[in-house]
Order: sequence, then structure tokens, then C-alpha cells
Amino acid sequence: MKHFDIIIIGSGPGGYIAAERAGDAGQKVLLIEKEHLGGVCTNWGCIPTKSLLNSAKLYVHARESQSFGVTAENVSYDFTRSMAWKQEVVETLRKGIEFLMKKSSVTVVFGEAECLSPSLVKVKDEQYTCDNLIIASGSEAMVPPIPGTDQDFVMTNREILGLEALPKRLAVIGGGVIGMEFASFFSSVGTEVHVIEMLDEVLPMMDRDLAKLMRREMKQVKYHLGSRVTEIKDHQVVFTDSAGKTGTVDADIVLISAGRKPNTLGLEELGLDIQKGAVTVDDRMRTNLPNVYAVGDITGRSLLAHSASRMAEVAVDTILGRKSLMRWHAIPWAVYSLPEAAGCGMTAEEAEKQGRKVKTAAVQMRSNGRFLAEHGKKAGGLCKVVVDADSEVLLGVHLLGAVSSEIIYGAAAMIESELRVRDIKEIVFPHPSVSEIIKDALWALS
Amino acid sequence: MKHFDIIIIGSGPGGYIAAERAGDAGQKVLLIEKEHLGGVCTNWGCIPTKSLLNSAKLYVHARESQSFGVTAENVSYDFTRSMAWKQEVVETLRKGIEFLMKKSSVTVVFGEAECLSPSLVKVKDEQYTCDNLIIASGSEAMVPPIPGTDQDFVMTNREILGLEALPKRLAVIGGGVIGMEFASFFSSVGTEVHVIEMLDEVLPMMDRDLAKLMRREMKQVKYHLGSRVTEIKDHQVVFTDSAGKTGTVDADIVLISAGRKPNTLGLEELGLDIQKGAVTVDDRMRTNLPNVYAVGDITGRSLLAHSASRMAEVAVDTILGRKSLMRWHAIPWAVYSLPEAAGCGMTAEEAEKQGRKVKTAAVQMRSNGRFLAEHGKKAGGLCKVVVDADSEVLLGVHLLGAVSSEIIYGAAAMIESELRVRDIKEIVFPHPSVSEIIKDALWALS
Repeated sequence: MKHFDIIIIGSGPGGYIAAERAGDAGQKVLLIEKEHLGGVCTNWGCIPTKSLLNSAKLYVHARESQSFGVTAENVSYDFTRSMAWKQEVVETLRKGIEFLMKKSSVTVVFGEAECLSPSLVKVKDEQYTCDNLIIASGSEAMVPPIPGTDQDFVMTNREILGLEALPKRLAVIGGGVIGMEFASFFSSVGTEVHVIEMLDEVLPMMDRDLAKLMRREMKQVKYHLGSRVTEIKDHQVVFTDSAGKTGTVDADIVLISAGRKPNTLGLEELGLDIQKGAVTVDDRMRTNLPNVYAVGDITGRSLLAHSASRMAEVAVDTILGRKSLMRWHAIPWAVYSLPEAAGCGMTAEEAEKQGRKVKTAAVQMRSNGRFLAEHGKKAGGLCKVVVDADSEVLLGVHLLGAVSSEIIYGAAAMIESELRVRDIKEIVFPHPSVSEIIKDALWALS
Repeated sequence: MKHFDIIIIGSGPGGYIAAERAGDAGQKVLLIEKEHLGGVCTNWGCIPTKSLLNSAKLYVHARESQSFGVTAENVSYDFTRSMAWKQEVVETLRKGIEFLMKKSSVTVVFGEAECLSPSLVKVKDEQYTCDNLIIASGSEAMVPPIPGTDQDFVMTNREILGLEALPKRLAVIGGGVIGMEFASFFSSVGTEVHVIEMLDEVLPMMDRDLAKLMRREMKQVKYHLGSRVTEIKDHQVVFTDSAGKTGTVDADIVLISAGRKPNTLGLEELGLDIQKGAVTVDDRMRTNLPNVYAVGDITGRSLLAHSASRMAEVAVDTILGRKSLMRWHAIPWAVYSLPEAAGCGMTAEEAEKQGRKVKTAAVQMRSNGRFLAEHGKKAGGLCKVVVDADSEVLLGVHLLGAVSSEIIYGAAAMIESELRVRDIKEIVFPHPSVSEIIKDALWALS
């Protein structure tokens, strides 16, 4: 029976980063993966969707750049080729992780992990012992108990990424990040898309003004807000709207994007504290069991790839006796739709709920020189900033518009560093850049 | 004779920002502009070039996105339309500045300013007095004393932005930022471009590896390094290469981009200390004369639009008795070519010249998931980081690849905040994003 310092279950952005950091620190590490290195993020999530959304962006640009002096005829989108490129990216990055694991001297075993005890894990016919166990088994799409979800044309993010032809009509159940990204992609390349959302607005984690603007910018999509799906029969999604009226949407494909649930299967028997389907952890990623850690979606906290990676680092630090703490207030998020949106820190609403007095300002992206030059006078976009009214410390930055996802890390850095408005005003932002909008919004604070 | 608290000469990103800040602070401000609000940046610099480069990017993407699943026929670039859009952007932003000046209660007068004394300025037939004078008169293209530069087809950034047709062959004298941006633009839309550079590498402010990579990525341009132009006759540029051999380049248009010189015309008589053609200032933007300040290119320090704006803020703060200091070590720069490059802080070479012990790491952009997905396996790109070997404080970030110009402000924030490697490792960067490359480079430090 082989012994390891650390066994890690799951090789997504939580698991493989934990393995890399621990391996580089000289730990003897076993990484167990049931399917493909990289987990959902690399194989059926962040990476393939971004690849497809980029193709969609290129397609839209090729069609709609006349006003910038670029014309083209017979612009066409080849779904098969775009999917092939997506797959090539996925496989390249998967190999990249494989390479990293070798470089960090991590042993990788493929198969379903069965935790016989906190220090004994079985994979297929082999058993492995360890001093520390990191559970990074991720999450899977939650399929609500709606009659008809068992039909072939009803899919989650996993199956829809394996489609062989572009659907004519797509119904998306759930207007969160995953739903809106797929809606953006498919609607940009010619599919008729309906989003059916239970709440009264899409993208619930987002500032309400931004969410509304997002719908306005993605106007080729049809939205059914405040609507609860009751049944999927044949190729029709049946829902009840906020007024109690029944509506239907015809669809060749139905995407279920109604949230995700942690993969806790089999973990209960370990004696782990599991609340609302997620493994309870503290800010050092310790579970209730000694030497057992959990990171990523399995914790039910901040279901984002980069959060998982950071949790992984904290878990490894904790195992190694290094002081390290997970902080949750400056984790950026991004929606990679066309246009993009991103945010970090609190919305005004969230801050006020905490009893803080805040100041906010919002600036239209089209007031920004570069944004105007690259997107035209009609493109919508917004930057909102939230600062503490007393200390003037930056609490939140919320962006909608091109390159938001690339700009937002700087907001994370500034919020983490607890910079005040006047500190940020002293930072020189390059001109012209969309990033300047953050500074402009701070100057617009009254 | 009208009296003002502050008179500002020049309405570029130094002058108009000074006017806005001072006006908003309740100062009675006169802004004098000899031509167009926004100065070189808005009218013949940053803004029009970025607009054209964006059109070029859209054109290249429309032609070269087959591998991403997007095909188009007869892709064509319409120079006239692209130039018209550029002009619309320029005029929109100019109007934006006009609006800002009104909003900040700034009086704007058009005409050449003549400084009769530090507190008396004449424009046309009117004279104005002031308590404080801010000189923000900018710079202009330096035309080296080469025989033949007086011909019509020999242009600076100003004239070339007024071209009515795309030249077939363009010779660019000087491979700095301006030269390389124009080379990138014209070569991307079909012009044969030669860059003739006196030094042995283009883009002298850039890390040498990045500059070399930039040339490799812009391989459609022909480079003549270590070459000194001796004459421009007819439509031929004659130069002597590093081996002493004479070479020639045929060109319909010749662009002179051999540096810029401050517009000090008439300022000597004020008694200003002028060294090497630039007005001497301290870090509060004070000149040798009481109540006379200088900001932007006229100071000969950091000839960048955003530097001018920050200098303007410092000057106004100083006038208002607020403590404020210009810091020069964390000013980002960007080259908006295809691909982009950007940097902030010191290169390893610069840090070592200062006697610092440094650690550096470089990571290929294609190891980044988003970069790979959006740009393919062959696209070149690099991120280099420089940190102090003793303190582990971040000293410099150098990027080549898409969206570098939008990412770099975060490096400015981190360098300004004197973050150490371990502080930055604790910041959560969104995944997938090109911005993650900075963190990856820090992890790659040995």
C-alpha cells in the first residue's frame, strides 16, 4: 500500500493547483481524477465556453465592422470547426496540467476515489494511505425536478459542449452566469435563444443596473423573467410567468443552468460535516475532521475556478504550517458574454445591507476614449464604483463592457490593498485604455 | 483686463485635466488653446491612432479567423471610412472636453498664447492676468536635419493622419512607439512598410526580449536596424547601415517618428530654466519661477498623455496648498500595435543599473488558457516580472500580447502599493484571463 503526504481528490482548478503547490514544496502527493485532468473548468466549463465565445465575437466583428471601415461578404460561422478548436484548446491545456503534475512530481491516478477513512483512499483495486486529505471533487449541474428533463435534448453544460450541430432554437433554463454565457454564444452565431429565469432579473450576483444593461445589450435573446418552468414535453418548455399565466417556448435543445451542487457522494460516511449539500470549512480550509481539507465548489462557497485555486493554496499552506487565510471579499467574477461584465467586492446594495454608509458613482463606458473608438457611439457599457463613505476605502468595482474580465483583477488588487479613493487617484492609468474608467468613476464620486 | 486664479497654456491631457481639477476646486481658470481642445493626444496622437489600429485589428481578424470557425470572403479595408470614423471619434472627444470645461466653469480662449510675464498672458489682442501660470504647451515631432525632409511626402504624425489614400509603400524613420504603431497599422492593412532605426533594436524603452519578440510578431514589416538616414530624395530614403553600407528604401510616404521636442517657443524670455529644450520642474511641478508650473511633454519627462494628466493634478494640488508629489517609478506605458505591448516599472537591466539585486521570470503567453483559446498556438506573447531579490517587492511588469494595454494599470497599482510577491500571490485573479499571466510569472520566480 503506497503512502503519500497528501492525497487530493479531484484535479480541477482546486485539485491540480493544490497538487502543484504541495509537490513544489516537496510533499509526496497523489492526485486522483475520475475523468480528465482539469475538471469541469478545463473540460466542460470556463475554457471551452471562452473558446466558443471568442469565435462568436470574431464572427460578430466580421459581420458588423463596416462603420470602422472593414467589410466582408458571406461571413459564415462554422460550428464544427469552432468546436474542434475548442476541443484542441481543452486538450492542450489538459496536457499542460499533465506536464505541470510531472514537473511538480505529483503522482496521478485515474479512477473514482472511495474514501475508506480520512487516511485511506481506494481507487479501483488499489488502496493508498495519506497524512492529509484534500477533497476537491467539485460540483455538477443541478437538474431541478421538472418533468421531462430526462429527454435527450435536455442538456447541462456538459452535453451541450458536445453538440454536433448548431440548434435552431435553444431554451436556457436559468439566467445565471452559465446560462447567460451560453445564451450569448448561441444567439450570436444564429440560434434563436430564450432565457427563462425564475427571479425577476438575470445574473443575480450582479449590480441590478448592470444586469438590466446586460439584457439590453444582449437584445437578440428573448427573456422570460419571473418565470418558473413546470414541464418540458416534446420540444416545448412550459412555464408559469409572474402573473400566473402559462407560456411556452419551442426548442430543439434545452439547457439546464439552474445552479450547481457539490459532489459530496460518499463523503458523508467519512463523518464530514455537510451542510446544505456542501462540506463545511473554516477560512484555513479545514473541515471538522483533523487532516481533512476541502477546497473549491465542494465547499459551496464561491463556486469559481479561481476561488478554488486560491482555496487550494490556503489548504496547502495550512498543511505545511504556513499562516494563510482565505479572504472572500475581493474575489472577482466575470461573465464572458458579448459584452463582458465583471465585478469585484460589494455592490452598493450589499454594502448597505451590512450597515455601511457608501458613496457610489457610475460612468458610461462610451465616455471613455478607447471604448468609444473601438465600440462606437451606441455600445452600452457602465462602470460603477462603491466606496465606504467614512473611510473612502474602495469596496467594489462593477464593469460591463469589452475587456471587463481582463481589467477586474486590478480592482481585486486595490480592494485587497484597502486603497482609498485618494490613493487610487494617485495611480497613473495608461491613456487611452478602458481601464481608465475606474479612475473616472472615482473622480465622479461626489 | 480679466484676472484669473490660474491661466493654463495648452489643452492637451496636461492642460485640460489641470483646468478641470482646478475649476472643480473653485478656481477661476483660463485655458488657452492655439488649435483644438485635447491637444496632440486627442487630435493627432493617442486617440486617432488607436481608432485606426482597432480598424486594422478588425480587418486582420476578419481575414484570419478560419481556425476559430469564422470565414469571410472579399474582406476589404476601406481607408476613407476608417479615417472618417477616426475623425468622428476625435471630434466627439473634443466636444467631450468642451463639455467638461463648461461643467468645471473653465473659460476657454483660442489663439496663440504669448507670455508677457509670469502673470500676464496675451492672446490675440486680449491680455489676461493671473496668480498662477501652468504651462502645458506640449511637444511636436522632432524633424532631424536630413536633406529632403521638406518634401510633401515626408510627414510627421500630424500630416499622416490626414492622408486621403493608403500609401503603397511607407518608410518609417524611427522605430519608437509612434513609429511602430504606424508601422503596425499600415502594414496590417496592406501597405509595404519599412522601419529604419538608428539603434540596434526598436522600442528602446522596452525590455530587449520583448522588443525582439515584437519585431518577430510584426514580421510583415521590414526592419533596418542600426541604420542612419542620410537623405530623402525623390521617393527614396537613403541610409547607412551599421556596416557602413548604403541602403535605400522606396516609399510613397515617409513618416518621421524620430522623437519629440517640447514646445518652448517664447518661454525663454520669461526667465524659465530650460535645459536641453525642456522646462525644468521639481516633483511638485514647480519651475524656477514662483507661481509658474509646467506639466506634460514641455517638462521633457515621461512624454505620455497620462503622465501629463497626473502632473497636471500635482500642479493644481501644489497651487491649492495640498500635499502632492509626482512619482515617476510606476507610470505604465503601452504600445498599441498588433500585438500590443505594455510595461510598468523597471526592466531587469534598469534595476541592475541602479545597483539592485533582482529576480526575474518570464512566462509565454500561450501557456495562459484564455490567450491560447483566443489567439491560437502560434501567437507570440510574453510576460516578464522583475522583483527586488531582497525585499521581494514588485519592481516591474512587462507584457507583450493582446490586451496588455488594459492589464498594465493593475501593475501600476501593485507597484505603487509596494506589494511583495507574497501579497500578490494572495490576490485572486479571475480565471480564465490573460491577466493571470502576471501571477503565473510570479510563481515562476525561483
